[in-house]
Amino acid sequence: MIDLTDHQALVNRIRERDIRAVAKAMSALEDDPSFAPQFIPALTPYYEKKPRLGITGSPGVGKSTVANRLVQELRAQDQRVGVVAVDPTSPFSGGAILGDRVRMVGVQNDPQVYIRSLGSRGSLGGLSAATANIVRVLETFGVDTVIIETVGMGQTGFDIVDIADTVVLILSPESGDGVQTMKAGVMEVADIYAVNKADRPGADGLATEIKSLLGMVDGRLQWVPPVLTMSAVDDTGVCEILGYFSEHLSFLTEHGLVADKRRRQLANEIRFLVESRIKGYMLEDARHKASLRELAAKVEARELDTYAAADAVCAMIMRSLAEDITDAKT
Amino acid sequence: MIDLTDHQALVNRIRERDIRAVAKAMSALEDDPSFAPQFIPALTPYYEKKPRLGITGSPGVGKSTVANRLVQELRAQDQRVGVVAVDPTSPFSGGAILGDRVRMVGVQNDPQVYIRSLGSRGSLGGLSAATANIVRVLETFGVDTVIIETVGMGQTGFDIVDIADTVVLILSPESGDGVQTMKAGVMEVADIYAVNKADRPGADGLATEIKSLLGMVDGRLQWVPPVLTMSAVDDTGVCEILGYFSEHLSFLTEHGLVADKRRRQLANEIRFLVESRIKGYMLEDARHKASLRELAAKVEARELDTYAAADAVCAMIMRSLAEDITDAKT
Repeated sequence: MIDLTDHQALVNRIRERDIRAVAKAMSALEDDPSFAPQFIPALTPYYEKKPRLGITGSPGVGKSTVANRLVQELRAQDQRVGVVAVDPTSPFSGGAILGDRVRMVGVQNDPQVYIRSLGSRGSLGGLSAATANIVRVLETFGVDTVIIETVGMGQTGFDIVDIADTVVLILSPESGDGVQTMKAGVMEVADIYAVNKADRPGADGLATEIKSLLGMVDGRLQWVPPVLTMSAVDDTGVCEILGYFSEHLSFLTEHGLVADKRRRQLANEIRFLVESRIKGYMLEDARHKASLRELAAKVEARELDTYAAADAVCAMIMRSLAEDITDAKT
Repeated sequence: MIDLTDHQALVNRIRERDIRAVAKAMSALEDDPSFAPQFIPALTPYYEKKPRLGITGSPGVGKSTVANRLVQELRAQDQRVGVVAVDPTSPFSGGAILGDRVRMVGVQNDPQVYIRSLGSRGSLGGLSAATANIVRVLETFGVDTVIIETVGMGQTGFDIVDIADTVVLILSPESGDGVQTMKAGVMEVADIYAVNKADRPGADGLATEIKSLLGMVDGRLQWVPPVLTMSAVDDTGVCEILGYFSEHLSFLTEHGLVADKRRRQLANEIRFLVESRIKGYMLEDARHKASLRELAAKVEARELDTYAAADAVCAMIMRSLAEDITDAKT
């Protein structure tokens, strides 16, 4: 039996590579919002951050095939690999699920590969706080590399760039969103661009277009992202991603950027936790929800303006915060 | 001279249709975040909500051409029209700007049309609180219909659906994002679908695809959105949008949905104001920003976990809220 309330014992079992303890902890992190604030403090002294590769891109560009190939390659290098797939369209999450572990061609029975699929909160991108914590569990469990697969990059304020050391954006000549997406500002978050389905028409043109867009901003960039072309189904060029991943990690180390990057990521994670908590007060706390509805009705009736209503909500949040902080102290 | 600090006088001048006062108030709403909390309470007793049509869609689908045509049609019906364009790619905001008013074919010198372009915060969609307030100024100024043009619908939590009574989503056979976007959940926010560039290949197929997607969910919908095909450049079918706009407004009234919809919109606007204020504390308040950085460094060093850091930030926010609320009362 695994006792989820004995956090220290659970952490110890994860460190001893008990796969059932890992699965239990991850499920609790994903499903029970009250678990993480109790469990993560117990886990924090023990996890050791490992290289984290983010793989992102629109549905259908071939992220899962790429992830699968990279896992095989890392296994050939005798690494332990953890995969977190946050993608409702991924075969890892949508395909044949075997308990908490998911089929992956060639590696599905390999005990040195741990795969976890998460439901996406908001299919246009964005991660839940659980994703960061599940990566910490994998690192405590003892993987050498973490791969995080996500569908697109969102505007939710907590994203693949806040977890991964290196982000590869997969594009395909067919997805059509490539350059449009890049122009919308997503460009500046990827460290590696990989045009998949290189055999299809338009692949070279897309790669050229990306290079020229990057050329327009490269004066502002410390690391100029490489642009690869590859074919995941034919297994051509995919593993070059790992070479550039190492190169990017070395670049961060050599330029003394590691600590600063990590702190910015953690600051963003903390900010996101705070925002989620405050959103929770407004959207989930029944008293506040009722008050918000009443305030809206008063604004509709012109008895109140929106700013006075916002002041009233802030006063309610203050009381909730005061209660929570007192609770945490007792 | 227009005194921005005499809010009552400013409101009076807007009510007297003083175009310079309108422009000044709008600029202050867009540029100075401290203006709205002072000015909106003074404006609130006077604005009267008018029919608001939201026009949204990806860049290049023809939103501005459609908006232009609809303004001409509303002018032919002798209506006063206000247009708010929140779109960095719109010719209204990107084109030839004449003071605060922008060229619009056929209506640019018409004093019964007031056009205001706003920079988009986050080009993947989402509105600023200023947009809602600028619509209120237009309504106080005395327009009969408001048209709000926005690029796409975002995930920022405050959006065209929170301002407009009726949202028309313009798609084009070339934009490619149509059905993909709909599948991503945007489908359920539009009240009218309009496939533009109906002469191009794929337009009918796109319309059929949208209808079939809507057919899959129509049991859940109160209002089943019509799907139009049109050609804005040839001026074919565009004005049907206005017919469906009226029909949708009547539907809301007949089914007693108006007050409920408006309250949900206002509740979301209030929630957004509160979230923006709290985000402001974390991202703009120098003390908090420095503390957030320090906390992140401590988490990196494992002296603290992310949840303890979030508690500390919440305690800081509580102090800021307490100060603000005291300030507001004095």
